[in-house]
Amino acid sequence: MKRYLMLVAILLLSGVAAATELPTTPNGISLIKGYGSWKIISPSHRPDKDQLRVILGNDLAMAAMAGGIRPFPDGTVMAKVAWTTRKHPNFPAAMEPDRFVQVEFMIKDAKKYGATGGWGFARFVGPELKPYGKEPGFVQECFGCHTPVKENDYVFTHRPAFPQ
Amino acid sequence: MKRYLMLVAILLLSGVAAATELPTTPNGISLIKGYGSWKIISPSHRPDKDQLRVILGNDLAMAAMAGGIRPFPDGTVMAKVAWTTRKHPNFPAAMEPDRFVQVEFMIKDAKKYGATGGWGFARFVGPELKPYGKEPGFVQECFGCHTPVKENDYVFTHRPAFPQ
Repeated sequence: MKRYLMLVAILLLSGVAAATELPTTPNGISLIKGYGSWKIISPSHRPDKDQLRVILGNDLAMAAMAGGIRPFPDGTVMAKVAWTTRKHPNFPAAMEPDRFVQVEFMIKDAKKYGATGGWGFARFVGPELKPYGKEPGFVQECFGCHTPVKENDYVFTHRPAFPQ
Repeated sequence: MKRYLMLVAILLLSGVAAATELPTTPNGISLIKGYGSWKIISPSHRPDKDQLRVILGNDLAMAAMAGGIRPFPDGTVMAKVAWTTRKHPNFPAAMEPDRFVQVEFMIKDAKKYGATGGWGFARFVGPELKPYGKEPGFVQECFGCHTPVKENDYVFTHRPAFPQ
């Protein structure tokens, strides 16, 4: 029993340690590890910022995209990853990602994030993943930018065709 | 026993039917269904063709990318999907995919495709997924283009940083 309690204590403590190590935004959203292994919703390009981006989704996001389900169900998470671009060193006609700029998350929880369309917003900047925003109200900036696509549950990204 | 044989016959026939329905290139490579659910290696942009692309990988491809393993192991498959671009209707500073252009595959089998660096090449064009190439020798065109990256096992794509 003692041994069991010790094991529980170690697991709890390591869990706490892992959680406190993750960068966290002022609205309480921590970086979600493993986002680079999520599936692709779409790429995008921002010529004004010289950035290539991919928008990735967890399984709920992919299912909602495939089925055209709106609003997105609670638990949906999307990640938008941005890099600066460079000419491919061996094929200069192609532009490829260069330096990592940021990763942004949208997390759906209709109740918890009701004030911002049901979405929790987070951004982590640069290779050091510095949390964006000085206080929790920074999300109004994110939400404001997303209001033009209210009819698509505040999501800009469309999934293009992957015919098969 | 009769029932069992019947079942085997049905399974075989349905397998054959599924195989013959898939578009197939002159070098015998059929479209691999489900490529749109593979993981992302990288996006890319071809300003000269006005195309946004994503390069996706099966699990072996992802492991080799993560571990820097070259040559890629037999069974590695990568898919490059290309779309024309358009301005996002609600956010014109962002370019997003518009029409599907093509999907291309590179399949690693060092022995089977030994004449082309161990890679089998295939391209399927347009929403109808028309197989590219008039005869099996069309792969020399693909292989020729990939020779500048021989030192990377004929693969152009680099996986950018996904820090976490």
